[in-house]
Amino acid sequence: MEFLSGIKKRKVSEVSDILKSNYYEQVIVMNGAVHKVADMSGFTFITLRTREGLVQCVKASDTAPCEGLKEGMTLKVKGTVKQEQRAPFGFEIHLLDVEVLSRPAATMPLPIHKWKLDTSLETKLELRPIALRNIRERSKFKIQEGIVRGFRDFLFTQGFTEIHTPKIVAGNAEGGANVFKFEYFGKKAFLAQSPQFYKQMMVGVFDRVFETAPVFRAEKHNTTRHINEYTSLDLEMGYIDSFEDIMAIETEMLKYVFELLNTQYQAELKRLNIQLPKIESIPVIRFEEVKQLVAEKYKRKMKTPNDLEPEEEALIGEYFKEEYGSDFVFVTHYPSKKRPFYAMDDPKNPEYTLSFDLLYKGLEITTGGQRIHSYEEQCNKLIERGMSPSDFENYLMIHKYGMPPHGGLGIGLERLTMKFLDEQNVRETTLFPRDLGRLEP
Amino acid sequence: MEFLSGIKKRKVSEVSDILKSNYYEQVIVMNGAVHKVADMSGFTFITLRTREGLVQCVKASDTAPCEGLKEGMTLKVKGTVKQEQRAPFGFEIHLLDVEVLSRPAATMPLPIHKWKLDTSLETKLELRPIALRNIRERSKFKIQEGIVRGFRDFLFTQGFTEIHTPKIVAGNAEGGANVFKFEYFGKKAFLAQSPQFYKQMMVGVFDRVFETAPVFRAEKHNTTRHINEYTSLDLEMGYIDSFEDIMAIETEMLKYVFELLNTQYQAELKRLNIQLPKIESIPVIRFEEVKQLVAEKYKRKMKTPNDLEPEEEALIGEYFKEEYGSDFVFVTHYPSKKRPFYAMDDPKNPEYTLSFDLLYKGLEITTGGQRIHSYEEQCNKLIERGMSPSDFENYLMIHKYGMPPHGGLGIGLERLTMKFLDEQNVRETTLFPRDLGRLEP
Repeated sequence: MEFLSGIKKRKVSEVSDILKSNYYEQVIVMNGAVHKVADMSGFTFITLRTREGLVQCVKASDTAPCEGLKEGMTLKVKGTVKQEQRAPFGFEIHLLDVEVLSRPAATMPLPIHKWKLDTSLETKLELRPIALRNIRERSKFKIQEGIVRGFRDFLFTQGFTEIHTPKIVAGNAEGGANVFKFEYFGKKAFLAQSPQFYKQMMVGVFDRVFETAPVFRAEKHNTTRHINEYTSLDLEMGYIDSFEDIMAIETEMLKYVFELLNTQYQAELKRLNIQLPKIESIPVIRFEEVKQLVAEKYKRKMKTPNDLEPEEEALIGEYFKEEYGSDFVFVTHYPSKKRPFYAMDDPKNPEYTLSFDLLYKGLEITTGGQRIHSYEEQCNKLIERGMSPSDFENYLMIHKYGMPPHGGLGIGLERLTMKFLDEQNVRETTLFPRDLGRLEP
Repeated sequence: MEFLSGIKKRKVSEVSDILKSNYYEQVIVMNGAVHKVADMSGFTFITLRTREGLVQCVKASDTAPCEGLKEGMTLKVKGTVKQEQRAPFGFEIHLLDVEVLSRPAATMPLPIHKWKLDTSLETKLELRPIALRNIRERSKFKIQEGIVRGFRDFLFTQGFTEIHTPKIVAGNAEGGANVFKFEYFGKKAFLAQSPQFYKQMMVGVFDRVFETAPVFRAEKHNTTRHINEYTSLDLEMGYIDSFEDIMAIETEMLKYVFELLNTQYQAELKRLNIQLPKIESIPVIRFEEVKQLVAEKYKRKMKTPNDLEPEEEALIGEYFKEEYGSDFVFVTHYPSKKRPFYAMDDPKNPEYTLSFDLLYKGLEITTGGQRIHSYEEQCNKLIERGMSPSDFENYLMIHKYGMPPHGGLGIGLERLTMKFLDEQNVRETTLFPRDLGRLEP
């Protein structure tokens, strides 16, 4: 009988192994893809793409078989590590031996070895699996990893529990027609637009919960900020004193995320030339107040009294950047008419809700607020809206048998990443975007 | 202008605050739901359900208004912390003041305050949001959180990148008819049965990737081990020497997970009376060998030469437990006929693949293996199976432009949790199961 007891000691080095210990003049073995080959005055330079970055290799002896090497091959190289300040990590490998592990069947369709992939977004998306091999393209998604990681790690420190809720659902939490429908063993089913009902249910169980999972919106928007499937960072918490507790958690979480990026993702921040935003504190302003302010300041006529237009959001972003040096602003107390049936109305003025959006560089990246916890209040609000409590029996179970005062928020991961990286289209920061016209790759 | 700079210092204590510092005889404030009320010889005992566990409160003065308190109410209590060895955490709170935060509208439909919720699975699922409030029920999902957390944390230490791939897809990676279909803006779309194609694409980008996300199977199975939506823990890695590298990563990952549960989830392990499995090493055996072995040992006739029947898996589990004291066994080299088109055949005998399943207590919890990386080889295998490479153009892009030798695995989170907790039905360890008959709650 054979037994497996774990990972064998690797005989292959990573960039970080070399940087950590004193490998100079040592002979090492490294794996990577051929990113670029250049012949220069008798030397062959091979740039190896490894998961930690680009490594410069030089043909150093006649025994190193570099002929016929081309972009897209994957290699196992053996060579001597030499200090070289002009090379990416301050070292290069003088090749002694090269083993070809695999060969491509065709010539690369994109110049992925270029520093900036100067290709249209359309082409990048058509050839997504290949375009992402460009170092700067992939760095965006390493940063995205860091954002999710920071979100989770921070919430774990705050006593939150991670949950996994179903994406196939019978009801339609956010209302409206923007939902994908399908047949589920003879029943009508939907793809979840948000984990709203389920995260609230789980507040009754764990008090504080979060989920990082896909959500689906059948919206027919064709804009630079909409996609039809995105990753939602959701949290929901019980025993809040007010909806400001939720904004406070988000502020602290963002600080934590930026600090994590600063310490663990420096290489990517440098590659993308990103300055971390300072968020000592975030300004908070009421919906009707900021609406007025922008109308006056920018001499704009208000068209949608109950909502912010994208242009208004952009102007609010500009205003708070100029006046307070802040990339972020919380807009609070959105009109009840524009918020879902589970939003808690402001007892001081029920035309407004105890809710907020967080705008980042003029774009809404978060919607949140306090939810109704009283069974009677929730039933009444449903009836007022012409909806029937009997259609929401499973959801209303939590109100019926007791729920603490609670609230939460949802953050669009791809939008947050887009704004953080100063990208102009959310597709740039979505691994494989789904939109009106795009279902592949 | 108002500004938010983060979380205000909380005036509310958690159980862990009390256990950490010397709070005895101090007056504290705590939030929680009324889990149970008992009147005994002039005293009122209130059990408070908090996110860290149950806290015993005693009516200590005439000023504490405990009359009318009932199960399901949520409270903010104020009282003196007293040492009390018979109470859950070794302390109780002598109440000075009680503020009712919310009231239920009906009497609890289940005795959730009981230690074991002796209710049928059917009832527990019907009343899922409430049944999960039982302390032992919810502990299962805290353990589940720990498994996912260990999976991710371990893979981060091994240079893996976390990815988020689309669940709305145009193709059908695993083949077969077991796929949910729907209309996507006039096109035919499917729900992803696995992130297989996308994680392979991302190996070309990051070498090592993982994802923890829902997958969807339209299988018409009605068994104790099937659900139609589950959380898949997926990883995929490049530059492997053989498919054993993947089994080695899984072995090491499981050790890491169990160690994390041991250190961070002791309270839940105790509540559920779970002994951690020892995995110094995991036995590895070939498919045809174990098939033969079980047939001889248990005098069973082989019916399905190319696959393991559930009963065979159970017997294999028994055998390896008895003979080697192992809950786990890797079965390798499954027949090519039963593995998907992307599985790499064994060059020594192409009737078998370089693949494996991991059985845990007689149930398959993981399927993995090496994938084909050569464009030509993959196109040929598709053609041999009567499939057309032109239907897989987007996927085959990675083979065409170069892929390292690679492989990976997928773990069913709910199954792994079920076996870890010695549950008999996967629905017990699924937050909100979706099956042939169940789409709600």
